[in-house]
Amino acid sequence: MSNDVVFDFARADRIGLSEAVFCAGKSPQQIASILDAARERDAGLLLTRLDEHKLTALPATLKAAIDWCPTSRTAFFGPLPPISIAGKLGIVAAGTSDAPAAREAERTLRHAGVEATVIIDVGVAGLWRLMDRIEEIRRFPVVIAVAGMDAALASVLGGLYGGVLICVPTSVGYGAAEEGRTALNAMLASCASGLLVTNIDNGYGAASAALRILGTMGLP
Amino acid sequence: MSNDVVFDFARADRIGLSEAVFCAGKSPQQIASILDAARERDAGLLLTRLDEHKLTALPATLKAAIDWCPTSRTAFFGPLPPISIAGKLGIVAAGTSDAPAAREAERTLRHAGVEATVIIDVGVAGLWRLMDRIEEIRRFPVVIAVAGMDAALASVLGGLYGGVLICVPTSVGYGAAEEGRTALNAMLASCASGLLVTNIDNGYGAASAALRILGTMGLP
Amino acid sequence: MSNDVVFDFARADRIGLSEAVFCAGKSPQQIASILDAARERDAGLLLTRLDEHKLTALPATLKAAIDWCPTSRTAFFGPLPPISIAGKLGIVAAGTSDAPAAREAERTLRHAGVEATVIIDVGVAGLWRLMDRIEEIRRFPVVIAVAGMDAALASVLGGLYGGVLICVPTSVGYGAAEEGRTALNAMLASCASGLLVTNIDNGYGAASAALRILGTMGLP
Amino acid sequence: MSNDVVFDFARADRIGLSEAVFCAGKSPQQIASILDAARERDAGLLLTRLDEHKLTALPATLKAAIDWCPTSRTAFFGPLPPISIAGKLGIVAAGTSDAPAAREAERTLRHAGVEATVIIDVGVAGLWRLMDRIEEIRRFPVVIAVAGMDAALASVLGGLYGGVLICVPTSVGYGAAEEGRTALNAMLASCASGLLVTNIDNGYGAASAALRILGTMGLP
Amino acid sequence: MSNDVVFDFARADRIGLSEAVFCAGKSPQQIASILDAARERDAGLLLTRLDEHKLTALPATLKAAIDWCPTSRTAFFGPLPPISIAGKLGIVAAGTSDAPAAREAERTLRHAGVEATVIIDVGVAGLWRLMDRIEEIRRFPVVIAVAGMDAALASVLGGLYGGVLICVPTSVGYGAAEEGRTALNAMLASCASGLLVTNIDNGYGAASAALRILGTMGLP
Amino acid sequence: MSNDVVFDFARADRIGLSEAVFCAGKSPQQIASILDAARERDAGLLLTRLDEHKLTALPATLKAAIDWCPTSRTAFFGPLPPISIAGKLGIVAAGTSDAPAAREAERTLRHAGVEATVIIDVGVAGLWRLMDRIEEIRRFPVVIAVAGMDAALASVLGGLYGGVLICVPTSVGYGAAEEGRTALNAMLASCASGLLVTNIDNGYGAASAALRILGTMGLP
Amino acid sequence: MSNDVVFDFARADRIGLSEAVFCAGKSPQQIASILDAARERDAGLLLTRLDEHKLTALPATLKAAIDWCPTSRTAFFGPLPPISIAGKLGIVAAGTSDAPAAREAERTLRHAGVEATVIIDVGVAGLWRLMDRIEEIRRFPVVIAVAGMDAALASVLGGLYGGVLICVPTSVGYGAAEEGRTALNAMLASCASGLLVTNIDNGYGAASAALRILGTMGLP
Amino acid sequence: MSNDVVFDFARADRIGLSEAVFCAGKSPQQIASILDAARERDAGLLLTRLDEHKLTALPATLKAAIDWCPTSRTAFFGPLPPISIAGKLGIVAAGTSDAPAAREAERTLRHAGVEATVIIDVGVAGLWRLMDRIEEIRRFPVVIAVAGMDAALASVLGGLYGGVLICVPTSVGYGAAEEGRTALNAMLASCASGLLVTNIDNGYGAASAALRILGTMGLP
Repeated sequence: MSNDVVFDFARADRIGLSEAVFCAGKSPQQIASILDAARERDAGLLLTRLDEHKLTALPATLKAAIDWCPTSRTAFFGPLPPISIAGKLGIVAAGTSDAPAAREAERTLRHAGVEATVIIDVGVAGLWRLMDRIEEIRRFPVVIAVAGMDAALASVLGGLYGGVLICVPTSVGYGAAEEGRTALNAMLASCASGLLVTNIDNGYGAASAALRILGTMGLP
Repeated sequence: MSNDVVFDFARADRIGLSEAVFCAGKSPQQIASILDAARERDAGLLLTRLDEHKLTALPATLKAAIDWCPTSRTAFFGPLPPISIAGKLGIVAAGTSDAPAAREAERTLRHAGVEATVIIDVGVAGLWRLMDRIEEIRRFPVVIAVAGMDAALASVLGGLYGGVLICVPTSVGYGAAEEGRTALNAMLASCASGLLVTNIDNGYGAASAALRILGTMGLP
Repeated sequence: MSNDVVFDFARADRIGLSEAVFCAGKSPQQIASILDAARERDAGLLLTRLDEHKLTALPATLKAAIDWCPTSRTAFFGPLPPISIAGKLGIVAAGTSDAPAAREAERTLRHAGVEATVIIDVGVAGLWRLMDRIEEIRRFPVVIAVAGMDAALASVLGGLYGGVLICVPTSVGYGAAEEGRTALNAMLASCASGLLVTNIDNGYGAASAALRILGTMGLP
Repeated sequence: MSNDVVFDFARADRIGLSEAVFCAGKSPQQIASILDAARERDAGLLLTRLDEHKLTALPATLKAAIDWCPTSRTAFFGPLPPISIAGKLGIVAAGTSDAPAAREAERTLRHAGVEATVIIDVGVAGLWRLMDRIEEIRRFPVVIAVAGMDAALASVLGGLYGGVLICVPTSVGYGAAEEGRTALNAMLASCASGLLVTNIDNGYGAASAALRILGTMGLP
Repeated sequence: MSNDVVFDFARADRIGLSEAVFCAGKSPQQIASILDAARERDAGLLLTRLDEHKLTALPATLKAAIDWCPTSRTAFFGPLPPISIAGKLGIVAAGTSDAPAAREAERTLRHAGVEATVIIDVGVAGLWRLMDRIEEIRRFPVVIAVAGMDAALASVLGGLYGGVLICVPTSVGYGAAEEGRTALNAMLASCASGLLVTNIDNGYGAASAALRILGTMGLP
Repeated sequence: MSNDVVFDFARADRIGLSEAVFCAGKSPQQIASILDAARERDAGLLLTRLDEHKLTALPATLKAAIDWCPTSRTAFFGPLPPISIAGKLGIVAAGTSDAPAAREAERTLRHAGVEATVIIDVGVAGLWRLMDRIEEIRRFPVVIAVAGMDAALASVLGGLYGGVLICVPTSVGYGAAEEGRTALNAMLASCASGLLVTNIDNGYGAASAALRILGTMGLP
Repeated sequence: MSNDVVFDFARADRIGLSEAVFCAGKSPQQIASILDAARERDAGLLLTRLDEHKLTALPATLKAAIDWCPTSRTAFFGPLPPISIAGKLGIVAAGTSDAPAAREAERTLRHAGVEATVIIDVGVAGLWRLMDRIEEIRRFPVVIAVAGMDAALASVLGGLYGGVLICVPTSVGYGAAEEGRTALNAMLASCASGLLVTNIDNGYGAASAALRILGTMGLP
Repeated sequence: MSNDVVFDFARADRIGLSEAVFCAGKSPQQIASILDAARERDAGLLLTRLDEHKLTALPATLKAAIDWCPTSRTAFFGPLPPISIAGKLGIVAAGTSDAPAAREAERTLRHAGVEATVIIDVGVAGLWRLMDRIEEIRRFPVVIAVAGMDAALASVLGGLYGGVLICVPTSVGYGAAEEGRTALNAMLASCASGLLVTNIDNGYGAASAALRILGTMGLP
């Protein structure tokens, strides 16, 4: 494999989490090299941050084996494991614009055999929307909360829900939203206690953390 | 009057708001000069950010005419106008640590003859505390919301309450609270619309804005 | 409605303010879904941050029902209420480059039936321009001041005008203007008291706040 | 209870986590009020960020019921529950200066009946120190990693350990350490995936999150 | 001279400006060494940022030769040149709290034989105060404008006055004033053109620049 | 004149400086409106930040009257005054990449009838290049120093040259150059005294300040 | 040579390091001027940050003499010196995305006759990959470590390797990676001692520093 | 050893550099524990950032074995190795206020048996002071440059001197000096190439890096 590309196919054996291919800094050529190598091993792969124009630039034979989601810009390449865990994970997003990170988390979990329930547009500016779903949310042992701007959803959930709460700030908003730093800081400085936070827009990271947590529960 | 101190006693005539004495950057000598000048004109004065040690350093005759509040570090000097407006203003604070800014707003309003109702410790980490008081809050045409850290109270109130909402971020919190900048940015980038924001810890400014608004209602 | 889009048509009933469609993070497909849903309910809608290329990408039948303003990038979709309030709102902008936020405020108010007067290019570098209009400005109970760079217009107005002053910082300027943060901070730290501030470039938010204030005056 | 102090003794019933008394912004009088109220209910309390001089200023009868730890500045007041969970939690700190946050986490857990194992001074500048303990660390389903400066410990652990990893950045360091923001950002942007992060120096928050996770495992 | 102290007595010969002794980072012992060396050469010296407690710690014989100003914390040591230039420099400060920087500029000029006129408390929140003095201000070829918080004084002056305008931002204010950075940025991004800016609180630097300008006019 | 455009042709009469047309935030239509109005009054105009594509989009009859400089993106429209002052202004730039700001200053001065001498590529990394020209530089009563990255040129010149030194930081550099903020801060915090600073890349502002200074010298 | 371009061909004689042509802020015309001048002197040149579209825009005769590397965007123009030093320099990069800076360092060294060994994808999230190569790395007296995001590789290497360690932070990552500032700060605040740091993405600077070090060893 | 203190006496064996005791975050009790342990092993120790009041609080028997330097706040405890290397290291500081970091570097080197030459007060505002010493400086293969504020000394030296240049930014200065960040960024973004940078005020780190470099030269 050329192009300064090395891929760590052995990671799953070592710490139990597969590495995903983060496509943001890679050329279509570099991505194709990795996919070719995966095909040789019959390894399934998750690709994240795969823009449409890079997808289009891939060779047709590789593209044919790809299941791409435009909202999350994730792709499944090759064999997808069956669903082995369901009903444990809720993904709650404040608004439509937060869907990319929420869907990235959902797809990362799905690639690991975990089915999550996604609930979008329950931001606290319309608190009744959240309250309508709160009993459903409380049934999940682990919830991923996705929100940008003021990220108030995280704090409200933190007070209403006693399970594990993984918070993903998003870069949604403008001006004082500071490209997600305000949401990030608000989640970190939340008045609710015991919230856990990931990088901005990092749906993949939140899902990876959720997999670590499911592992401690004897799952999957 | 010496000590590089000039005080604008004519301001109230010009734009309808009295100037307060902001004591943070002034020496006890400078504060005493202003109080002496006020006494000569029989003018009542509001002092803000008056630390206890500066209060203690004032001449006894001036100190005797001062009504000082340790929480807000505000002082009334000389004649206090009677209450002419009541029941129009609610001041809602997320937690005990937000009391200084809330009380500064309350006392600034009181000095202008306006009685406000203060409700403390209704932060959204315990949403039930806010919901218990929401009907009472909704009765005020103008509400001042005071919160630090994630300032989620402002967004939740913004969705539950349709009147005028003046938001005061506070410097409460540590680390990612960034001395109040996170609360400030979260209020500015709130998912609820039509929120108005003041400087960090600026209870005096929020009260001044409320007085401008009461003026538009034919009050006081 | 698909595409992760949920729209809150019931908001106006709950807190008295209609939700607008913020188009910045939405695809033409998502915007079209919302417009289709609105048409089914005969609901009028305000769209903000609608770029020309997204407008162009909408289906012709929807586009025909849209009144689009290139300066503010706002659109009225469907029925527009008649003007029910006039002469209460002044919108004052420092320079030509501040027109987008000023016009966004004007159009948001117009969509709610409120006619505002817009005065542009009265920045304080040419103080005479502001002084020529100050008597006219003083007649409005509520003024929205729009300025970027140093935002000095807000402080000068704050000292000359005793009504409600809503300040909108803009991202106009370069270098030390810091994409609007300098204007924002200058308005928050103004030497004039009782100024109220919104997010950068947030003409929509300023208008929403003005509607909350008009509501307290028994209007609209 | 006066002094603008309201304490939420009912929180544990609602979301399963007791509220702690965060003493940083409170006066000794306010702290004493809360302790008196707790004593009336026979409630045990955890106090965090209790400086020695505030401890000293408390009434002797209250002080007698306090078990104070100088490193973490936490205090147990009143009845302490027995240990109900052990062997599930490891707390790993990079250096001696990180001990305050590590001990705050340990004591918060202990107050909830959970015994944690603390391992200090395994920073990666001396990688052998970490490697000597890694097998022991791997036995815990949940690990809290505490580090300041470059926070490299978190990334290295993230690659060596597959369980749940809660990362606490600390304000240890100077200059480019930026009072903990560098450690915070490095943990959020870690090359290892699935790390979860709390606010700077927030050992209490990390422990609260760990309690949420233990709850999902059917513990405690 | 010991204590790692070297003083450049030859500077005035080389570029025409005397070096001042910046006392902020120096111990009383280091300051005394410099004063002793100056006395041996019969050189007069300007000292800046000399705190009262350092002044008090100097040997009595040195202290006797010092003329100290508590507002500006400047000191004249030894011979003071006569006034050779007057009526060329105006120093205009927005408020009482800006007096330290304004007086530092005035004293630095005085030490170089230039008499300046200081006008304090003409901030634009009370525009009439500035307008009352504007004709007087316009008579100076060079004006130093000193302001903190929003620094709007600089922009207003920039539009009313056509001479040389040197702007000194001050650290006056709190919260969004960001310790003078907001004033600094506002002056740099001013809507008025041709403003020149110095470091925060740098009255000495503004005076030094004014001396460079007077030099180009054939003065002093 | 439509398009929210108002131009202040009377400014020169009031403070002695013509206003330039800052094109960065204006559409070709808005620029054309201003040029048409200028043509009607026979007024010459300076345009700054005029990109090539906006120039190309102007009507041919206007374009024909424009003298455009690609390095500085400035344009002279209509009559250009003769040179009335020469030999007073030096413009010194550290490197080739700083030429845009240097040429913007030169052209702004030329539009006001002042001829400046431009010296490029004398950055201090090759100190000999500066030393070769220092005697020539010293002959100018006013020097504009243009530099990005570390801006060390400003400090070195400040120590070698005793005249008026106007410093223009540029956005040249990457990473730690922070888009010109490092150069800006380094100039403000210079170890040389009496330096005056403008906004980042603001050659126009430096020239305007120079015109104010020339005015004090009885020029132009 | 026109176009405001001056090139310092004499630099190598003065301090022993050739100047490279930094192409980021230069037009193809300016680059061509420099190359023409170099050709006249038979001088070889290194070009950095040369984008493909600028390369394409160069005259064919110049392009023919260019050896361009797409990963590092560096180019060798004209004669390349033979390799005079080998086996002294290791370049270690954390991941594929760090290759541009690593290759820029390698090519800069090669242009000076130094052959370096490049080892990519040894980030500490997979510590075993680094440990597999550590003995090889230890053989180099000087190592350049290239890493973005959390830059933990630098700290781990700093503890395992006792030679000279030059650290290059990269802008790889998103959100809290803050365009390389987190990696930069983490390297500066490393828990390992004696690390030396360059600007973000500055492979050229790291190689230049390495050449200074090789010079002190009597090399090259 | 108690008090959460672990000291790595084996470090020198592993990577060839002794660990120093960084006293900033440690109590006198913790420091005393480490010194007691060192005494038992007859190990000499370097202590950094040891404030006078902590020194005073140590037990008399330990204090008697300490050689403390008030400028650098470093201490030698126990046996000091003889000087084995001299004439290789120059330490050049811009001003008196930079002496603490310069002396910390000097003392760290001395503790490792290396004698350095310290040259203070050669800042570029008085370029002649540097030029007077430049021949002497050029004789050292390695130079540590220490400067705050604008850090222009580093860039000038970088152009005049071809050896290894280690740059230490200091927190000297105020306002735009941003507690050393401006000096740090200016050094990183220097127009001179091949400069290497450490954390702010990190004289110890610069010396450690110098020791790594001396090691590559076959020294010590």
